Amino acid sequence: MNDKQAVALEAASYVKNDMIVGLGTGSTANYFIEALATRQQQENLRITTVASSNISMIKAQSVGLTVLSLAQLSQIDLYVDGADEITADNSLLKGRGYDLVMEKLLAKAAKEFIVVADKSKLVSRIGENYPIPIEVMPFAWQAAKRSIEAIGGTGDLRPNAAKDGLCITSYGSLVLDMRFDASLDSHQLNALLNNIPGVVEHGIFAKLASKILIADQGKVETRA
Amino acid sequence: MNDKQAVALEAASYVKNDMIVGLGTGSTANYFIEALATRQQQENLRITTVASSNISMIKAQSVGLTVLSLAQLSQIDLYVDGADEITADNSLLKGRGYDLVMEKLLAKAAKEFIVVADKSKLVSRIGENYPIPIEVMPFAWQAAKRSIEAIGGTGDLRPNAAKDGLCITSYGSLVLDMRFDASLDSHQLNALLNNIPGVVEHGIFAKLASKILIADQGKVETRA
Repeated sequence: MNDKQAVALEAASYVKNDMIVGLGTGSTANYFIEALATRQQQENLRITTVASSNISMIKAQSVGLTVLSLAQLSQIDLYVDGADEITADNSLLKGRGYDLVMEKLLAKAAKEFIVVADKSKLVSRIGENYPIPIEVMPFAWQAAKRSIEAIGGTGDLRPNAAKDGLCITSYGSLVLDMRFDASLDSHQLNALLNNIPGVVEHGIFAKLASKILIADQGKVETRA
Repeated sequence: MNDKQAVALEAASYVKNDMIVGLGTGSTANYFIEALATRQQQENLRITTVASSNISMIKAQSVGLTVLSLAQLSQIDLYVDGADEITADNSLLKGRGYDLVMEKLLAKAAKEFIVVADKSKLVSRIGENYPIPIEVMPFAWQAAKRSIEAIGGTGDLRPNAAKDGLCITSYGSLVLDMRFDASLDSHQLNALLNNIPGVVEHGIFAKLASKILIADQGKVETRA
């Protein structure tokens, strides 16, 4: 069993009968979806899921999980997803996969948000390894970019995977990948970015994680 | 001359040759657009405008002003628009007309944002006369509404004018009209609402106005 499987299996142990579970997107989240399906089948659990992306919806349906849309649900018990960066005070960077809004909605709506990761995701500050993805309205991207530059950001629109156009989110927004120097901490940056008109959402998840499970050579450390 | 005309004329006196001017939407903003067109013609000024809505774009074109899109402009010199409520510390409520995002973009992007209003718009706190319009993504409205309720808001989705469906913004969002009790000031509420995922924008304009022109029985008071 690799580290991603180990941490996914541990996260699946938090699921109880009748829970509504939010599903993340990515390789570790995929292992969690598989582990959840296994528990549902072996223990005959009633589990309802809500997906953070079309990818995780298709994955969940393929292993026999019931997937509802967020609009059909009045609450979410547990959301399990990975992160690109994790700081010592449990701030996260997410959104390399760019469906930022749904991920943040699930993180905020869920009673418990468990982050699954391996040790490579630990950083001393948000933005250490990756630029911060900032989802912006298409007609507003230049004005928003200037406002972001005014608080010290540098970067540009994210190209699509084929590099022959721009990355478009499932809500039709563009994504700015912006780097900031180390003088702003993630809480300050979160508040500054939230205040810029035209910014739909961004990849800093401050004070949202309730537990962080970190795998290191088969062992799983749990941070609350 | 009525109060709306008086204040619009005063705002138009701030326009200089070669300026790029943002145009608001509404009855007072319409008088400003007319006054601007008159100055352009009489003084042979070169003025470029950017509109906050399709309504003001059509109005501006009809009186002979050049209208460009925000995406074509690297800066805006002056934005002139009305407000629904104005507090003593120059916080504004806007968005009864619901094109919130473009209005806030212009207010933020402009070097100077002049608010034109009559005395009836003065309030002791934001939300005194109107609910606060909050633009939300269609798939997120329920989750966003629950988060807004958790900070004390009450209200519901805005219906369309014909009352046979929902109000949809030009970006395809829904609008929640929410009331809050008087214990939260507009700066606190601004920060709380900005932090809720699924919220695209809201009607509180805190610290954005550079000048407020208030007409009262033909006289115009200028607050900076």
